[in-house]
Amino acid sequence: MTVAGRLAEIADLGRDAGRGGYSRHLFDASDAPLRAWFRRSAQALDLTVEEDGDANLWAWWGPPGPAAVATGSHLDSVPGGGAHDGPLGIAAAFEAVAQLQAAGVVPARPVAVCAFAEEEGSRFGMPCLGTRLLTGAVDAASVLERTDAAGVTLAQAWAGSGRDTARVGPDPERIGRLAAFIELHVEQGRDLEDRGIPVCVASAIIPHGRWRLTITGEGNHAGTTAMDRRDDPVVALAGAVLAARDVARAGGSRATIGKVQVTPNGTNVIASRVDAWLDARADTEDRVRAQVEVTLERIRDAARAERCTLAVHEESFSPRVDFDAALTERIAAALQPEFGAVPAIPTGAGHDAGILAAVVPTAMIFVRNPTGVSHAPAEGARDEDCEAGARALAAALRDLAGRA
Amino acid sequence: MTVAGRLAEIADLGRDAGRGGYSRHLFDASDAPLRAWFRRSAQALDLTVEEDGDANLWAWWGPPGPAAVATGSHLDSVPGGGAHDGPLGIAAAFEAVAQLQAAGVVPARPVAVCAFAEEEGSRFGMPCLGTRLLTGAVDAASVLERTDAAGVTLAQAWAGSGRDTARVGPDPERIGRLAAFIELHVEQGRDLEDRGIPVCVASAIIPHGRWRLTITGEGNHAGTTAMDRRDDPVVALAGAVLAARDVARAGGSRATIGKVQVTPNGTNVIASRVDAWLDARADTEDRVRAQVEVTLERIRDAARAERCTLAVHEESFSPRVDFDAALTERIAAALQPEFGAVPAIPTGAGHDAGILAAVVPTAMIFVRNPTGVSHAPAEGARDEDCEAGARALAAALRDLAGRA
Repeated sequence: MTVAGRLAEIADLGRDAGRGGYSRHLFDASDAPLRAWFRRSAQALDLTVEEDGDANLWAWWGPPGPAAVATGSHLDSVPGGGAHDGPLGIAAAFEAVAQLQAAGVVPARPVAVCAFAEEEGSRFGMPCLGTRLLTGAVDAASVLERTDAAGVTLAQAWAGSGRDTARVGPDPERIGRLAAFIELHVEQGRDLEDRGIPVCVASAIIPHGRWRLTITGEGNHAGTTAMDRRDDPVVALAGAVLAARDVARAGGSRATIGKVQVTPNGTNVIASRVDAWLDARADTEDRVRAQVEVTLERIRDAARAERCTLAVHEESFSPRVDFDAALTERIAAALQPEFGAVPAIPTGAGHDAGILAAVVPTAMIFVRNPTGVSHAPAEGARDEDCEAGARALAAALRDLAGRA
Repeated sequence: MTVAGRLAEIADLGRDAGRGGYSRHLFDASDAPLRAWFRRSAQALDLTVEEDGDANLWAWWGPPGPAAVATGSHLDSVPGGGAHDGPLGIAAAFEAVAQLQAAGVVPARPVAVCAFAEEEGSRFGMPCLGTRLLTGAVDAASVLERTDAAGVTLAQAWAGSGRDTARVGPDPERIGRLAAFIELHVEQGRDLEDRGIPVCVASAIIPHGRWRLTITGEGNHAGTTAMDRRDDPVVALAGAVLAARDVARAGGSRATIGKVQVTPNGTNVIASRVDAWLDARADTEDRVRAQVEVTLERIRDAARAERCTLAVHEESFSPRVDFDAALTERIAAALQPEFGAVPAIPTGAGHDAGILAAVVPTAMIFVRNPTGVSHAPAEGARDEDCEAGARALAAALRDLAGRA
């Protein structure tokens, strides 16, 4: 088979007709068919599939642990996301195992292919949900109380999917089985395209946080309320968007407001409330904090100017992650025969690898993205680069786990 | 009974737990129970109920037409609207008929109580849908192709409600029955509160238009896309909101962006598209057009600055309506004995009365709103002012249609 052929098997699942691309979220209609595809792919390679208590899937080549090498990514997407962010790392992992099996490789240590739950955090607002729960990076009880846009709690959704909420939480025994984790992922920028190479390794994930801004004004009639009698949170939002952009530009960081909910959202109604999410990233944690502090001060001023109130809630904060240097160098060396000296580049995107790096030596492999676009339908990777990614991952796994 | 008692009968229908207040839209779950309430209220007064081909309800006291006096309003609301905008005019109409019947009045000409469909236009984007169709102010075939937020066409929703789309359109015979139309409505401002009087008549509706703005940029990853490589339509939206506010402030007009849809609306995604609705009003049509032209030019600049494109679609334009002077004076005279000399005030809000004024002598009665808030849960009228409204409407109907 090929990586492209494997991705083609799930090409119809979770398509988003309105936004384009894919909307695949935890326990939605696409979730079970995607998990079924994972199980079929594993069974075709004689891998043994388990689901842990945090809804993450594990397909084992050889008996589970100890000193295992795990690889994988996630099957969920942002709303209207591309086909490769997540699934490429899983399809390439299965393809790499298939190539190693075809080459007669017998693993000296167990190899696991993983699919982690809700990496994008699109439904319950917490990215890397599955790996954060698994590693104990978050408190399971409070996470289970989170709600989606429809007001459904994670606990309700979990039970509704037939899973046991009592099993949710850290699983140190499972983590203890792992000697290394490698995540292969489509690049979310144009660095490889600009360099003219198909794959590379990652050096670090820059720090990243999400803040929910709730701006409350006074709902009123759009036709009868004089301009100077309005407490309009949409006007305050405009100030917030410009503040985030200006502070990030001036500070060399990145800030985005990409999600906005207006209440009541009627054409002839001055809004009573706006919820907006601020995503901020910079090369150091102090810099993220400092930039967000300045931004929030400016947003508070913008709200006050419209006689609106501002409430700020930090939804997540992901510290800087430096990937394991020894593991990364070893993978780069394994790639050398086919790909030459590959660079190690930092990324502004969060990944399950960033969570697992806290508990197990972890590295990443990136695959070239010709447009550099990600989290959008235009995201992609050429078929031949996807195959190159699978060969690179196979080379790394053979080096780490193989015995000819 | 009382007006407050009549409104209490529908107080539980169409409540919006999320936004507060009411969300009652065409053919939603509240629609049939609201229509059933209308029929029960009419039957209790021995009125004969008909539904016309445009989903408007008519309850006749005496045989339908000719030279009838009609009164009524609408049962639908904006998203998260108040309890009085619309239903007050219908509850007061039933109460006025009840008072006239109790006083032994026999109408010399027929009286009709009306409930017009989808006055707010919240579901299909066209305010005064029922009266625009009834009077032929819009083309039925093109209106039936309009879609709601879920992509359902009006034709599909119409047929799904069990109604016949072939009957949709102008009904000149029905309009020909009418000699006068009076709409009683809660005031959508604080004029009566400031003057210290419970009711007044209306002089005019100022012109009003709605434009849909579609700003298209490029979706991308919030973490990996440098600030200077973004084509972010949310940033362009911020410019649009401020442009609308600034132009309206400077020009003495009113402009509102109260409805916004961001695509794909993910926290870690630079948006690919924003749809926003501009509501603009001023005292003359030329002034609305001129203000909107300047606003759109500034919005186009804001979009261009972010390398986004702007598409503008005029969803509706409602010209200035001057209510029938003779009818308005006659109603004011009928109110004089109880209420003294009531003023005639203009309003920035659209109404079915504004549509019907093109084809039949039309007037309005406003009821005091202590907060001045409208299109929001805080909208309201005191119970005693609602009763005063019913007595005022009864006085007007007795003068226009009564015979002791």
